[in-house]
Amino acid sequence: MQQRAVRTREVLLRAAAEVFDEVGYTRASITSIVDRAGLTAGAVYFHFKSKEGLARAVIHEQAADLQFPQGEPGLQRLIDMTDYLAVEMQQNTLLRAGVRLAVEQNEADLHEYAIYEWWTERFREELVAARARGQLLPSADESAFASLLVAAYTGTQIMSQLSTKRADLPGRISAMWRCLLPALAPADVIRQITTSATATEARA
Amino acid sequence: MQQRAVRTREVLLRAAAEVFDEVGYTRASITSIVDRAGLTAGAVYFHFKSKEGLARAVIHEQAADLQFPQGEPGLQRLIDMTDYLAVEMQQNTLLRAGVRLAVEQNEADLHEYAIYEWWTERFREELVAARARGQLLPSADESAFASLLVAAYTGTQIMSQLSTKRADLPGRISAMWRCLLPALAPADVIRQITTSATATEARA
Repeated sequence: MQQRAVRTREVLLRAAAEVFDEVGYTRASITSIVDRAGLTAGAVYFHFKSKEGLARAVIHEQAADLQFPQGEPGLQRLIDMTDYLAVEMQQNTLLRAGVRLAVEQNEADLHEYAIYEWWTERFREELVAARARGQLLPSADESAFASLLVAAYTGTQIMSQLSTKRADLPGRISAMWRCLLPALAPADVIRQITTSATATEARA
Repeated sequence: MQQRAVRTREVLLRAAAEVFDEVGYTRASITSIVDRAGLTAGAVYFHFKSKEGLARAVIHEQAADLQFPQGEPGLQRLIDMTDYLAVEMQQNTLLRAGVRLAVEQNEADLHEYAIYEWWTERFREELVAARARGQLLPSADESAFASLLVAAYTGTQIMSQLSTKRADLPGRISAMWRCLLPALAPADVIRQITTSATATEARA
């Protein structure tokens, strides 16, 4: 695509994310999306074909604006990543809209499972690195844990959104890790791990 | 309410559950619900006021047709309960519709968090019983684990529904427990626990 076409697509994707984030799939209209983007409906048809196409793009590209924490691959980076995502869920519209659509996609008959597999693989890579660094208990199954993490994160996000509009999401993710870590890593590894909760305590 | 009014309400609730389970909130119409119930729209207005009222009732009463496993309160019953729910999610329309609406409720602006608290409390009671029976590790936090269980179950259900229309939900719940149990109970307690997976192995 030419530079200008790439920019137009970006503008549309982000306008769609804003509208989906605010009102969900059903109530989002192509008119409201193109109005927000300052473009015409023709641009949607050219780049995404339909509202459904826009929704699929927002689901698939939900992580496009993320800048994952640096640092050595392994357990600490996995935890840093989930802490970072909890904050991003409060302010990153593309991520938030993509997650919302992935959760509520039955309403639109989208059948998009691949994004859950993508996150599972992302988490699994860190667990595989953690294994290579000797950070995991022999009993811990990297693939099963990666899948559980995606499930637990998805459900935690839904509960946090309903109870506090995600204000308590970082705290819930810390609580999740306090539950999970003893099944994943030996005590001496856990002692060296910093979670956002322990970081907050250390600063206090 | 009189007997007949109670029955009418039951028939409507179940017809609504069928329709919500099949097409979701947005595409469900009061007409399709009353047609299925063999009643008139007046019955909906009398008992539930609106489609929104019907949806709230289906969410709140999602567990009405469940018959939870008997047995002593504690870790085994908690696991039996989650195995039972995995099978019920495949065949219990009221449960399935209630869970679907609870997950997709943003599309209808329902803000119903109480059902998640209800499940959390239900799971917590078993963990408190498990604690009293000496089944839990000192480090395990009953409330945090109960909340994580509801979150993990919710997310697992979404992923199973998208990937296999819930055919693999029992297997996913067994995998969840294999991940979680080492953080919850000491090895000698875990050895005495039967999950649906170990039960299947024992039968094989």
